[in-house]
Amino acid sequence: MELHQFFLFLAITLISARLLSEAVARFGIPSVIGELLAGLIIGPSLLGWVSPDTTMKLLAEIGIILLLFEVGMDTDLSRLARSGSKPVVVALIGFVFPLVLGYGVSMWLFGLPELVSLFIGGTLTATSIGITVRVLDDLGKRHSDEAQIVIGAAVLDDILGVLALAFLYQFVVERHASFDALSEVGLYILLFMVLTPLVAKLASVVIDRLDRHASKPGLLLTMALSLILLFSWLAHAVGAPEIMGGFAAGLAFSQHFGFRLWLGKYPALVFKPSPKLAHRLEEQVRPLIHTFSPMFFVMVGVSLNLKMVDWGSVFIWELAAMLLLVAVASKFTAGFFIREPRRNKVAIGLSMIPRGEVGLIFAQLGFSQGILNGELYAALLIVIAFTTMAPPFLLKWFYGRVADKAD
Amino acid sequence: MELHQFFLFLAITLISARLLSEAVARFGIPSVIGELLAGLIIGPSLLGWVSPDTTMKLLAEIGIILLLFEVGMDTDLSRLARSGSKPVVVALIGFVFPLVLGYGVSMWLFGLPELVSLFIGGTLTATSIGITVRVLDDLGKRHSDEAQIVIGAAVLDDILGVLALAFLYQFVVERHASFDALSEVGLYILLFMVLTPLVAKLASVVIDRLDRHASKPGLLLTMALSLILLFSWLAHAVGAPEIMGGFAAGLAFSQHFGFRLWLGKYPALVFKPSPKLAHRLEEQVRPLIHTFSPMFFVMVGVSLNLKMVDWGSVFIWELAAMLLLVAVASKFTAGFFIREPRRNKVAIGLSMIPRGEVGLIFAQLGFSQGILNGELYAALLIVIAFTTMAPPFLLKWFYGRVADKAD
Repeated sequence: MELHQFFLFLAITLISARLLSEAVARFGIPSVIGELLAGLIIGPSLLGWVSPDTTMKLLAEIGIILLLFEVGMDTDLSRLARSGSKPVVVALIGFVFPLVLGYGVSMWLFGLPELVSLFIGGTLTATSIGITVRVLDDLGKRHSDEAQIVIGAAVLDDILGVLALAFLYQFVVERHASFDALSEVGLYILLFMVLTPLVAKLASVVIDRLDRHASKPGLLLTMALSLILLFSWLAHAVGAPEIMGGFAAGLAFSQHFGFRLWLGKYPALVFKPSPKLAHRLEEQVRPLIHTFSPMFFVMVGVSLNLKMVDWGSVFIWELAAMLLLVAVASKFTAGFFIREPRRNKVAIGLSMIPRGEVGLIFAQLGFSQGILNGELYAALLIVIAFTTMAPPFLLKWFYGRVADKAD
Repeated sequence: MELHQFFLFLAITLISARLLSEAVARFGIPSVIGELLAGLIIGPSLLGWVSPDTTMKLLAEIGIILLLFEVGMDTDLSRLARSGSKPVVVALIGFVFPLVLGYGVSMWLFGLPELVSLFIGGTLTATSIGITVRVLDDLGKRHSDEAQIVIGAAVLDDILGVLALAFLYQFVVERHASFDALSEVGLYILLFMVLTPLVAKLASVVIDRLDRHASKPGLLLTMALSLILLFSWLAHAVGAPEIMGGFAAGLAFSQHFGFRLWLGKYPALVFKPSPKLAHRLEEQVRPLIHTFSPMFFVMVGVSLNLKMVDWGSVFIWELAAMLLLVAVASKFTAGFFIREPRRNKVAIGLSMIPRGEVGLIFAQLGFSQGILNGELYAALLIVIAFTTMAPPFLLKWFYGRVADKAD
């Protein structure tokens, strides 16, 4: 892409995202909806000004990784640990139900081939952690108890989704897939999630010291950003979603995170939590997040090419309606398998519904590999669009109702 | 480029730039040298880890445009006006001398064809405003009197360089070039430089008001950034260098900049300077500048592929030595055509020497169009490398000597 054209695209993206998110916020609508709408409007669905170009997508990815970094920084692991197995239960149910039901509906109700049905089930599995976090943020609920469970569950869910994608992809390309390879990747990811916060914490101590002796300002931000990028690359290398790199790095820089290394009976190395460093970094990283993260949501809207849908086809509508039912019900029920106040169960169930980008990647892969034809792809687009757009409204309405009752 | 690969490239670029600039700063060397060195080391000249990829270049360009935005914000137009015609004189002499002398040396001393000689002369004309600004910044001299003249001159010089490039390019492609078209572009650029700060000032008032009523933080930065990008696109559209868009937008947001529109005898619209807005924006834009601007200098180093040079060729060394003499002497003398204390004349002359990216673009265009052969391109690379790397040392040494005398 030419330099000046890129500047124009970027400016259009940033301005439309901001203006629309401000506009919908006036009507009490979560601002992430404005950004998704901006993408639908300026993208191929309507005006066609901006296409899902590589460079724009790369910047959008930086945006979502930085957002996950911020989520990681806000996460208190001890508080997450106190919620125990709840995120695991929500994630597992929210993964298995849509996969099995999506597969079953496609195969038995619509008579689709096995592989196609598997792909459709896979598309319905992964909760979009980005959209979930943004909605909770817009509603001022990101630090609530239920949000802790949702974020933990969405992280696990995203990892399960990527594993499923890798498995299905291998199945499509090599016509067979081994569970051995899959469990190996699973092990790598587990190691990654456990080890990287420790390594990143070590790095954060070094960076903090360097920053205090730097000749020019800005070392902290540059180095933290580099660490996030390195970890995202590493996440990809072990087979995990890239955004997990941002999340893991964020955990390490969190004001709550510290640990001790023991040599025999004595603590050999003590890494204390450093609220000051966390505060300084958060101050500096916020302008970058404000700039780049809306791009991610705009690009989700841009990637949702609704012109691909033949709106007159009955089959598309029937399939979309059934899959939508599966997609919403399966995630919503996941909240009811844990012991929580009913209010939290509903909030968790609703928060897990957004599919967004991971579902899109699934569907696009299936479409480009010739597994999904135009009609199936269109039906999935409808499901993704609805599950992405509806939860912000549903959550807003639900929290409003709960608050009214409490008054 | 793949997502994870891009993350790795970006991390390597950011880390190496920062570590090397810190390392050279320990030895009292201006830190921009560290960033250029980082580019030479990680680029094709040495390790070959990072290539001058499109996306990396786009981010680098955002970096330099933001730096020029900051320069614009720091510019006090009334102070610049007080230096009168001095920047114009320095720019014109610093443009004509290298062009004529480079042309003459190539044609009469080395017997090169006319068009080739013209291209070589053109390559020697444009001062790299980016490198000049960074060096003055590293030495803590960006707000001095002489820096004001240098920045004014470098801006004009950059515009003259782009005009020369457009003219020569047209000459090469269409085998003839019209001065009419050139003066039309000149007129557009003049209009752009006069009108955009006024338009941007108007926009800044709107943005300021929007920001104070925004539902979420970050509107000011996002909108200012979009304005900078739009203006850079517009600059390209009228035929000016893209970075002028950043500079023009910066002028408008400067704490010194205000104006009145008169209707007959009465001021109809008064736009006061707004130091508060300027301060708030500068605070927020600085993390972006710290992150992206080093990328620009690294990418200059990456683009300087010194492996292209056949270091054993006598012809290359002879030509490079002669052109280097022309390149240094012609810019240095430019400082002596104005009425200033001798100290300032020397500082201005030295500051105008860096060629960097504009020279590189010239040389690469000539090479890719088949006008310059490998040997000529190599000689120009040596000239650009030297004129880019030497002035920081020369200026540092000169300011040190002047300070010693003053004690």
